[in-house]
Amino acid sequence: MDTYSVKAFGTEAADADLKQMNIDRREPTPTDVEIEILYCGVCHSDLHTARNDWGGSKYPVVPGHEIVGRVTRVGSAVTKFKTGDLAAVGCLVDSCRTCESCRQDLEQYCLNGFTGTYNGKDKHSGKHTFGGYSEKVVVAEHFVLKVPGNLDLAAVAPLLCAGITTWSPLRHWNVGKDSKVAVIGLGGLGHMAIKLAKGLGAAVTLFSRTPGKTQDAKELGADEVIISTNEAQMKAAKGKFDLIIDTVPYVHDINPYVGTLNINGTIVLVGYLGPLDPMLQTVPMIMGRRSVAGSVIGGIAETQELLDFCGEHNIVSEIELINMQEINTAYERMLKSDVRYRFVIDMASLK
Amino acid sequence: MDTYSVKAFGTEAADADLKQMNIDRREPTPTDVEIEILYCGVCHSDLHTARNDWGGSKYPVVPGHEIVGRVTRVGSAVTKFKTGDLAAVGCLVDSCRTCESCRQDLEQYCLNGFTGTYNGKDKHSGKHTFGGYSEKVVVAEHFVLKVPGNLDLAAVAPLLCAGITTWSPLRHWNVGKDSKVAVIGLGGLGHMAIKLAKGLGAAVTLFSRTPGKTQDAKELGADEVIISTNEAQMKAAKGKFDLIIDTVPYVHDINPYVGTLNINGTIVLVGYLGPLDPMLQTVPMIMGRRSVAGSVIGGIAETQELLDFCGEHNIVSEIELINMQEINTAYERMLKSDVRYRFVIDMASLK
Repeated sequence: MDTYSVKAFGTEAADADLKQMNIDRREPTPTDVEIEILYCGVCHSDLHTARNDWGGSKYPVVPGHEIVGRVTRVGSAVTKFKTGDLAAVGCLVDSCRTCESCRQDLEQYCLNGFTGTYNGKDKHSGKHTFGGYSEKVVVAEHFVLKVPGNLDLAAVAPLLCAGITTWSPLRHWNVGKDSKVAVIGLGGLGHMAIKLAKGLGAAVTLFSRTPGKTQDAKELGADEVIISTNEAQMKAAKGKFDLIIDTVPYVHDINPYVGTLNINGTIVLVGYLGPLDPMLQTVPMIMGRRSVAGSVIGGIAETQELLDFCGEHNIVSEIELINMQEINTAYERMLKSDVRYRFVIDMASLK
Repeated sequence: MDTYSVKAFGTEAADADLKQMNIDRREPTPTDVEIEILYCGVCHSDLHTARNDWGGSKYPVVPGHEIVGRVTRVGSAVTKFKTGDLAAVGCLVDSCRTCESCRQDLEQYCLNGFTGTYNGKDKHSGKHTFGGYSEKVVVAEHFVLKVPGNLDLAAVAPLLCAGITTWSPLRHWNVGKDSKVAVIGLGGLGHMAIKLAKGLGAAVTLFSRTPGKTQDAKELGADEVIISTNEAQMKAAKGKFDLIIDTVPYVHDINPYVGTLNINGTIVLVGYLGPLDPMLQTVPMIMGRRSVAGSVIGGIAETQELLDFCGEHNIVSEIELINMQEINTAYERMLKSDVRYRFVIDMASLK
């Protein structure tokens, strides 16, 4: 496999800061697209992988899976893209493309395991993949998305992870004009969930622990904010929601939220990986045919659908644009939830 | 309200045996149907209510909500039934009939609370309702079901609770010819779940803790039995099922079963009311869009659909017919799961 060297930002160890380094990209195969990266969003997963919080990180780690850029080269068999096109890459750069999930455009549930944009097993190099904190990326055409030209490109980047992670459950559970949707947590995912649910025509409520986010939530499109520590407000919301998107990434009690689901309602977890502590109570589920579900990112066709939808409805993320060299500070601020609502790296700063 | 006295079997206290007593039934109103009870199934809820295991029992308790009989009188406004017709009553004898659930034929999820066939708040008497361990019952026409004439009437009785409790999730989650369904637990509910899923054309697997039930399960229609304590068998079942109906009525670890769900699969709890201990793990749910849900009995239209389906497919419960006077012994045997698979009382024995 022919390769070439590009500048990147990554880390050599879990306890080391990110710094500039060089990594290899493969020369585009006939089915590959080469993209010059203009913007890359900063996801919590970037930080967790850089620091090996989940175990299994392979070093050097070059994070980044909210990638927006411009096509610089295409392989001879590529048909969807040409040099100069806008293009985007999300959390997936490959999958088996033959299993039942892949055949249903559910590459995120590939039964043979999808290839993550970073820290995934690279089928070409045999090593691990490097993400979007770099000058360029080379990706199989099938996993490259088209970007509407009317949107702020930097603010498009977070759609590729925070956006699709909330869009997929909104679509899978058929949210539309008559839906009552609630969102738990107002961060990168939560603020996108509000915008997208609102874009789909739903009535949208934010659950928040503190009143401090009420104004912001309403500006983002929420019709209502319920303070989850306020018993009277929680009681008044009993039986109300068709779908709740729970974006909280740490352990928390979901039982009070289950009680706010309507008959046949579903609470879908997209942020928290671990045991449900305190224990989930089955009575409210049984007595109202309520469901607790999970969902991860989205498939490629669904991600394209999201980007097209955002183009039509002028929806982008709220971002703070940073230089590549500010990434270590940005990680520290993310740990304190001190970001409205997503950091995006201006990759021109890497040059 | 005019009433008349009928013979019944019930208990005056949580720690007392059931014995013969007299209770009052209302004279049929214009919209009521009076039914002479021929057979009444014996549900675990009967025992739990008689013994106040869940709290809230009102005495005397006259259990029984799997009722099959013959119409003896109809009110002047009744149109669906006439004297001499076969008729059945399940777990519900009333609901508000105006809320969103009732308007959708989901009386079991009536937002104002349905009236249980026993131990419910009787809107007519202002007291509590008495169930089917009695000579006759008087029920609003809307809550009375038609019974196919080709089936063994005694074996029809358990369809009214054990049957509909498993039928409702099979239908709600769209089980059909291409579905892979698993059932956890082979009791009153589990054996009906197997028969009904098979009747709908699904491939059906039983999860059982011991090999002892394999032969029975296959005779009931199961294609396969997985011994849940056998790690190799559980591992081989990973990602297999579209729907799992969990009929186990006591606390148990559902995590191993979640792992056997296919992408987009659902495990629906119909038996266990309480906290999920050990704690439910979210990773398998998130990484496969899997759901954990609950479901309770079924609506009236859906119950009629079940009875019609069973008539067409010649499906009934496996039963042990007992006399009314044997009920206390039957309860003791039920506590030891010593019944294949449902006791049904021959109500002629009460005369």
